[in-house]
Amino acid sequence: MGLSVGFLLRRLGSPQAEPRRAEALLTVAGLWILVPALGAIPFWISGGLGYLDALFEATSGFSTTGATVLDDFSRFSYGLFFWRSLSQWFGGMGILLLFIVVLPHLALAGRQMFFAEVTGVQKQQLTPKLRQTATNILRVYLLLTFFTFSAYLLTGVPFFEALTNTLSSVSAGGFSPNPRSFADYAPLTQWVAAGVMFLTGVNLLLQYRFIFGREFKAPLRDPEFRAYALIVFWVGLLLAYILYLRHDYDLEPALRHAFFQTTSIITGTGFASADFAQWVVPAQVLLVLLMFVGGSAGSVGGSIKVIRWLIIGALVRRELQRALHPQAVLPLRVGNRSLGEDVLRAVSAFITLYVGLFALGALVIGMLEEDFVIAFTASAAAVGNVGPGLGAVGPMSHYGELHPVSKAVMIFQMWAGRIELIAVFALFTPELWRRLRA
Amino acid sequence: MGLSVGFLLRRLGSPQAEPRRAEALLTVAGLWILVPALGAIPFWISGGLGYLDALFEATSGFSTTGATVLDDFSRFSYGLFFWRSLSQWFGGMGILLLFIVVLPHLALAGRQMFFAEVTGVQKQQLTPKLRQTATNILRVYLLLTFFTFSAYLLTGVPFFEALTNTLSSVSAGGFSPNPRSFADYAPLTQWVAAGVMFLTGVNLLLQYRFIFGREFKAPLRDPEFRAYALIVFWVGLLLAYILYLRHDYDLEPALRHAFFQTTSIITGTGFASADFAQWVVPAQVLLVLLMFVGGSAGSVGGSIKVIRWLIIGALVRRELQRALHPQAVLPLRVGNRSLGEDVLRAVSAFITLYVGLFALGALVIGMLEEDFVIAFTASAAAVGNVGPGLGAVGPMSHYGELHPVSKAVMIFQMWAGRIELIAVFALFTPELWRRLRA
Ligand SMILES: [K+]
Ligand SMILES: [K+]
Repeated sequence: MGLSVGFLLRRLGSPQAEPRRAEALLTVAGLWILVPALGAIPFWISGGLGYLDALFEATSGFSTTGATVLDDFSRFSYGLFFWRSLSQWFGGMGILLLFIVVLPHLALAGRQMFFAEVTGVQKQQLTPKLRQTATNILRVYLLLTFFTFSAYLLTGVPFFEALTNTLSSVSAGGFSPNPRSFADYAPLTQWVAAGVMFLTGVNLLLQYRFIFGREFKAPLRDPEFRAYALIVFWVGLLLAYILYLRHDYDLEPALRHAFFQTTSIITGTGFASADFAQWVVPAQVLLVLLMFVGGSAGSVGGSIKVIRWLIIGALVRRELQRALHPQAVLPLRVGNRSLGEDVLRAVSAFITLYVGLFALGALVIGMLEEDFVIAFTASAAAVGNVGPGLGAVGPMSHYGELHPVSKAVMIFQMWAGRIELIAVFALFTPELWRRLRA
Repeated sequence: MGLSVGFLLRRLGSPQAEPRRAEALLTVAGLWILVPALGAIPFWISGGLGYLDALFEATSGFSTTGATVLDDFSRFSYGLFFWRSLSQWFGGMGILLLFIVVLPHLALAGRQMFFAEVTGVQKQQLTPKLRQTATNILRVYLLLTFFTFSAYLLTGVPFFEALTNTLSSVSAGGFSPNPRSFADYAPLTQWVAAGVMFLTGVNLLLQYRFIFGREFKAPLRDPEFRAYALIVFWVGLLLAYILYLRHDYDLEPALRHAFFQTTSIITGTGFASADFAQWVVPAQVLLVLLMFVGGSAGSVGGSIKVIRWLIIGALVRRELQRALHPQAVLPLRVGNRSLGEDVLRAVSAFITLYVGLFALGALVIGMLEEDFVIAFTASAAAVGNVGPGLGAVGPMSHYGELHPVSKAVMIFQMWAGRIELIAVFALFTPELWRRLRA
């Protein structure tokens, strides 16, 4: 994945050349098909899975989704569990390079505006800084990997489980070699994991500025970070309250499981400290809604992402003002910065495609599985790269029993969700193919 | 309701006067609270319901939702059943006048653009034609009422049931004096009702041009009508196929129940020819998705409406082209007409508010009712003014058992959904209240 991104970067000498854009889109989408297709081979040959199941597992790995078809964890060797988690670690790194380095360079669907917002870097300055930005991101990613591995070891996780869980933690992947995920680990390990998962939902450039640039106030000035942290705080507290009241958890376990699951689902990691598919309905409803929030832009977190919700919120506020002053020219603001109308259009189109792909997936899966909860949560968990759903596809269960067509739909959703849809759907425009032939 | 709209029209002498706009918004929203609050009194006094239940029933009536709290239909007298259906008939008329006549005049949130699109009437021409447009709409509404009543009587529905069902049919209301809705009527009555419900989802100005203007090709040239008819046709066929294959329906009943339920749910009428909450999951998933489609603009149909989906579809197509040509200036087209960016923003904001109100409602109802299916379908059925949900709140059941807070949430959703949200949420801006004081 790292190699392929390097390959892509070299091809992008001249960002203004229009045919290059079509080629680049095709390259991104194609690599993200090719890598899982090859990465599936170990699961197929040594894991004893059929090729569709192997492809499901590999796509789930490289897309950092963490949905599994594995019914019996004793079928896999240590090597396969390592490969499964390593694919997530590489997938997470690939996503960071793709979205922080490559796509802003392509100005894809207003995306450079996004990152110019978040990072303060102007469009024209991006090109010479490409290599530097990539290096900075990798430094943060490696530091977090090292820190997480040490913390898991120190809190008593056995070596192999600490290693694989680390690779799946920092990438918000969620594959665990343990069929009970984090449920049997020490409370301290669960708290550490919650903290790590919180960080995986934070923009890595912001983390770089905080850690290496010593800009300690940068997160507080960042509207996306503030919103993300507030959501985690309040939803975590509400969930803790529900667990304390309705289950027989004491105060500390209620808080621990609540913040573990909130950070796990909002970032789309998908680890479980408890079988949340057995929780009361109010708790489950909260988790389903979190699946549609997502982490920050420039993080490994999946789903729609907080910045897009902030932009949509700004749009709605402005339309309400416009209901009163139809002739007024009102700027669109998030934090102190005003956004161009192109960002707004890109965000509206993104959310529409996202919800459309979710609804279509739920429809097809619902038709085949004859179960509402599987249909809605499997579809949301696949397109948002979360992993586990609820009900029969909960965190202590698996997707192995689904109809092959449901699995194929989820493979498409994991793939499209991870490369953020626009690139995927542009592939289906005849325009792109005309350009490639020209 | 008719009176109140007349009152409103008289106040709108000068559309450019800004303070009038704030007053008008407040008047619209306020009347839509006041009328059900008073209309609840008969249910409260003579129906033996608590005031909250009475308000639920009345809001459900005037908003043409048709969700009921009635567990035992023998509790209500003929007079109350008549009042229940009459409130829907007046509610439907009020909605038509509000959205075709009053709001376009206010240029509320780009709405006049909508109707300029659909009707071919330019903005500046609207004012002198106000009275004429209102008269034309009422002619179509009355004609449909007369036709429906005759057809129900001729196909064997008893007089009182024919009368009340007519009032609830032409308004897409869905209240029936029969606890089994249309399930026990003759097949021919069910086919007639399906046809009438199809018409209630069509723009009334388009129907006027077809019937009175003899423009027989107008519907075929209208992109919204074409899309609406195609959706009904294909979803109806798919649903018939599922029913034929998976239930013991013969071909004719499969087609009949499929088209009855498709037209009933897409327009948000909510009548039932069978207990669709007992159908297989694939059929139920289709019906839930239809709840989010809605009828055409300028009809009594609820929910998001076909034209908004067409506009969102045009936006998405344009963003995909933009991924390839980021510098190009691309027009936004629905059919042959190009739309302004303000329409696009209004539609994006609307759908966001709509989905937000649905999700928030599902969250609160889910917390209180502890049931996924109730949470999602009650919320969708309330905000879309559909009426019945699935599971324990299916068409042969009722909302009487819900927690009072769930009922209050649904009352808010029915009210906000019916006056299309923007007016409602503008009420919560401090700006509006400053303007009123100024
Ligand atoms: K994941
Ligand atoms: K209705």
